[in-house]
Parts: sequence; structure tokens; C-alpha cells
Amino acid sequence: MKLLQSLFVITSLVVTTTCVAAEPLASWQEGARKHTIIEFVKKTTTEGSKDFIAVADRVAVFDNDGTLWAEQPAYFQLFFALSQVKQLAPDNPQWKTTQPYADILQGKMPAHMTEKDLIELVMNTHAGMTSEVFTQQVSSWMSSAKHPITKKPFTDMVYQPMLELLTYLREHDYKTFIVSGGGVEFMRAWAPDVYGIPAEQIIGSRIASEYKVIDGVPKIVRLPELEFNNDKAGKPIGIYNAIGKRPIIAVGNSDGDRAMLEWTTAGAESRLGVIVHHTDKEREWAYDKDSKIGKLDKALIQAEKENWLVVDMKNDWSVVYKK
Amino acid sequence: MKLLQSLFVITSLVVTTTCVAAEPLASWQEGARKHTIIEFVKKTTTEGSKDFIAVADRVAVFDNDGTLWAEQPAYFQLFFALSQVKQLAPDNPQWKTTQPYADILQGKMPAHMTEKDLIELVMNTHAGMTSEVFTQQVSSWMSSAKHPITKKPFTDMVYQPMLELLTYLREHDYKTFIVSGGGVEFMRAWAPDVYGIPAEQIIGSRIASEYKVIDGVPKIVRLPELEFNNDKAGKPIGIYNAIGKRPIIAVGNSDGDRAMLEWTTAGAESRLGVIVHHTDKEREWAYDKDSKIGKLDKALIQAEKENWLVVDMKNDWSVVYKK
Ligand SMILES: [Ca+2]
Ligand SMILES: [Ca+2]
Repeated sequence: MKLLQSLFVITSLVVTTTCVAAEPLASWQEGARKHTIIEFVKKTTTEGSKDFIAVADRVAVFDNDGTLWAEQPAYFQLFFALSQVKQLAPDNPQWKTTQPYADILQGKMPAHMTEKDLIELVMNTHAGMTSEVFTQQVSSWMSSAKHPITKKPFTDMVYQPMLELLTYLREHDYKTFIVSGGGVEFMRAWAPDVYGIPAEQIIGSRIASEYKVIDGVPKIVRLPELEFNNDKAGKPIGIYNAIGKRPIIAVGNSDGDRAMLEWTTAGAESRLGVIVHHTDKEREWAYDKDSKIGKLDKALIQAEKENWLVVDMKNDWSVVYKK
Repeated sequence: MKLLQSLFVITSLVVTTTCVAAEPLASWQEGARKHTIIEFVKKTTTEGSKDFIAVADRVAVFDNDGTLWAEQPAYFQLFFALSQVKQLAPDNPQWKTTQPYADILQGKMPAHMTEKDLIELVMNTHAGMTSEVFTQQVSSWMSSAKHPITKKPFTDMVYQPMLELLTYLREHDYKTFIVSGGGVEFMRAWAPDVYGIPAEQIIGSRIASEYKVIDGVPKIVRLPELEFNNDKAGKPIGIYNAIGKRPIIAVGNSDGDRAMLEWTTAGAESRLGVIVHHTDKEREWAYDKDSKIGKLDKALIQAEKENWLVVDMKNDWSVVYKK
């Protein structure tokens, strides 16, 4: 009887594995794009294949805004900054009479913010506190905030097909990383739970910070100074600094990802570059070269030359948001 | 017969696991230090224990020079820099008549190097090439270089008891990281093979680098400018930037690790700080507060107050170098 039980356990394990492998990328429509992804993963992970990549080198990098979750009508981190203005207002009475803070405090979307205004807004809302307090502020906001148009929690606006792609790659021993222009500590507060990507595999822009012992208690204090901008040519550099090797797969959605895709796919051996093209104005948003957020122009032109896979959200995805 | 074979496989697996778990830290002498480490790992990884730490938070950070491998009579990276001077001499004819390069080219250990000389030496030997060429240079040197005193390959001078500690922690789902003042890309060229720590779990000092497309080929070029010094108060910052969380275990050997140990062990929940004290002049070197390399003074005083574990190499380790 014990022998039979053992065999039953073994058989169940085999059956389970087979089922998982049977339908990868379930929310991707059958067709050329899905086929290309699956064939790429197969050839780079099948022993004996001429395109086989050793496990230690299986690095897949994903942009976040517009690639793993939505980014319209503004980067979601901006909504956090606006909420922070309200939270921090009691300590900043001058904001009542200073723009854009006065508008924000009255619940209006601030008009005409210059880039300088925007950077100042980020510094005023992301710096000055300890590392632990900041993480707590992001978590607290994320647990209750809703998107202004869809009314969904922001973490429900992650893309189901991309969650499936992340899982599929990890099942084939690819290590998945986020490489985003967004703030690294903003993402680390929620992305590990949402994407299954550990904090140390999240690369992003960051402000400076300082180690200080305050009243005998060691703390890391966040400073109002942009230290690293993980965007455009900063993405390959961010990857080199954090991982030390060229990815095998890179996925992005805008010109901010062009350098990362270009560096990735210029590597020897097999490489895969993927661009998510926002083409679905019914279920999500449709935008590319004329968009202020997630502008996709040069990278789309280069995609053809470089043979990057351009995913057409409308036609390639049967589901958009997380189920 | 198949049933019996299945059972045999299962039984073998169980037996193997038991054997591995039966003698952890085999090169550590029985006694208080070994006991403390094992009890700490048990209580933080046993479900139901009041000191249980979730797997995602099991972060253990290790200094490298003097903690995972030896560092006398000079940091081993310096020997690489000296070797690089010879390799790069044909492109730098002026070195024949410039100190300290003239001495180095004649095989003499350069005398009286100021800190400025040293930084210039590092920039001249670690920058100017692409990321891939630099990694190749380190690998090539490491494959043939020998330590001037022991005549061993440098990678044979890693500490057997620390290899066992790394393995023991990983068996208990701790993620092991290097957090070193040494150059991150210097370490990434050999440390993954030697310690079983993947490239992306190595944090170190780094020079700046630049993404460039040269003759149509995307490259990362290393620049002669120190961008981040991962030492002293830089260590907690390096950890925060790369991992985003406070470690549970920190291991070091000098005052350069004081801030990292202090920040780690000030965390809530159980934490373990460990200092490797070099006390064995027969099998290795004996040094602490008066040493130029790996000076251990303030951290040793603080260890008592903070209850950090001070490992006595002579008495706690039955073997020093990798077997
Ligand atoms: Ca994007
Ligand atoms: Ca050290």
C-alpha cells in the first residue's frame, strides 16, 4: 500500500508538471508573436539545442510602466506623489499658497507643471523620511488608492499576459528583473507580491540616501537629490551595475527602452527583444509616437530593422488586466 | 520491480539529505561560536519558532577581503592592477619613466604610493575598456596568477569554513550576498564560481560607465571615475540600493564593516552580526587594530557592546583555506 501511495505521488507530480507546461501564455492569442516567444524559450532552454543558454545567464528584463502595468493618463507613481502632498500638508503650511501644491490640496490635477516643478514635487514627497517610513507610506497608499478612470486598485491594472510571461520564463529558469525609470523603492513596496519578483531583482531610478545614527538608532535617510536616472541610456548602465551581464530577453514599450533593447539584442548568442504596442483603445489605451507618456517612436522604427517582436495588445492579448 | 526502484530513489534522497544536515560547518571547531551560528539559523528558519524569518527576508551579507578570502600582504585586487600595468604597458610608453609604473614594470613592489597614486593606478588599469574586455582581463589573470607568499592561486585562498557557512545558509533558504569595498566587476569575474553567489548578488565599489554605440556596435565603456565607494557608511547604502531591505545576518572583519554590522543588528526581529578576527599567524596572518589592511579596532570594541559574534580564526577553525 505504501508502495502504491509513493507511485501515486510520483504520478501526480508528473501529471501536474505536464498540465502547467501544456498551456503556457493562456491569455495570448495563438499566432506569430506567441509562437515566437515559445520557440525562443524552448530553443534557449533545451539541452543540446545550439541556442542553449546556461541557467546562470538566463536574465530577462522588463520595463514596468506600460509594459507590466498601465501608465495612462499619468505614471501611477505621480498619483502617489499627489496623495503624499495631502499626507504631508500639515508639516508644510506654505503649500496652501504655493502652486502646484495649492491645486493638489484642493483635489485638482495641477496644470502646467514644468519639469522643474515635477522634480521638486517628487523630492518633496519621496525624500526627507527614513527608508522604512517611505516604504510604509507607499504600502499604505497602494492598499487603498484607486485609478481615477478605471476605479480599480492600481495593482489590478497589471497585465495578465505579462504575468503569464513572467511565470513561463521563471518555469524555464529565467531570472526575471524589472528595469524601470520609476523609483526603485516605490516599486519594491508592492512589486514583489504582485509580480513575484524579489526586491533585489528590481532596478529603478533612485534618489540619494545617507546612513546616519540618530539618537543611537541607525537609519537610512532619503535625500532630495536624484542620484540615478534609470531611463534611456541609463537602462543598460543600471543593468550592468546591478546584474553585471547582458540580458537574453528585454521587454519594453517606449523610446525609453530603446537602448536596453538595442544592447540586449546586440549580444552574441540568441537574444529576444519585445515591444508592447498599446493598440487597444477599448480595453486599455491606444498611443505611440504622439503620446506624452510612454512615447513610442524611434524604438518602433528600430524594431523592424532589429527584428524586435512588436506585440499588438488589441490582437495578441485575449485578456488585458490581471484576472 | 519499478515500485522497488522508486522507493529506493526516495530512500536515497532522504538519506542524502540527512547526511548533509548531520554535519554542518564541518571545519568549525565545536564550541560557543559554532553553536551560536547553528542555533541562530535554526531559530530563524524553523516554522513556528518565535524568531522565524520569512524566506523572502532571509538576507545574509558577507564582506569579501579578509572575510571570505585572505587580504595580506595587500588586497588581491592590487596584484591584479600591478599585472594590468604590464599588460597595458605597450600602449603607455610613458610609464617606463613615470613612478610608480617604472618600478612595477621592473617587477618591484612600488614604494611610497600616496592615495592619489593608488586611485590613479586603479583608474589606469580598470577603465578605458569595454565591460566585456575588462571581465576577460580579470578572468585571464585569475586563471594563472599566484599569491606572492603562499604561491597558491588566489582563489585557493578562500576560507573553507566560510564556504561551509555560505552553503549552510543557502540550505536554509538564506540568500547570500557579497558586500565588499572591492570592485564589483572584478569580483563578478570569478566569485560566482568560487562562492556559488550569482553576479547579481555581488555588491561592491564601482567606477562610472557609459553606454555608447561605436561603429554600430552597442558597448558599455568603463570610465576613470570612482562612482560609488562601497565601504564604511557606504555599505548600508549599497545594500539599500541593491537589495532594498536590512539584512538578517552580516559578516565582516574590519572597521569598514562597522556600519553594515551596526545597521543590520539594529533591526527588529533576530539579527546576527559576525566578525572574523585574524588570530592565526601560523596558518594565515594575525592582525587587527594596527594593521594597514583590514584594520579592526572600533568594530572590535563595538562588538562587545552589540553582542556581535567574534570568530577566533586560530581556535574556531580546524581548516583555513579551501580544501
Ligand atoms: Ca515604459
Ligand atoms: Ca574586509
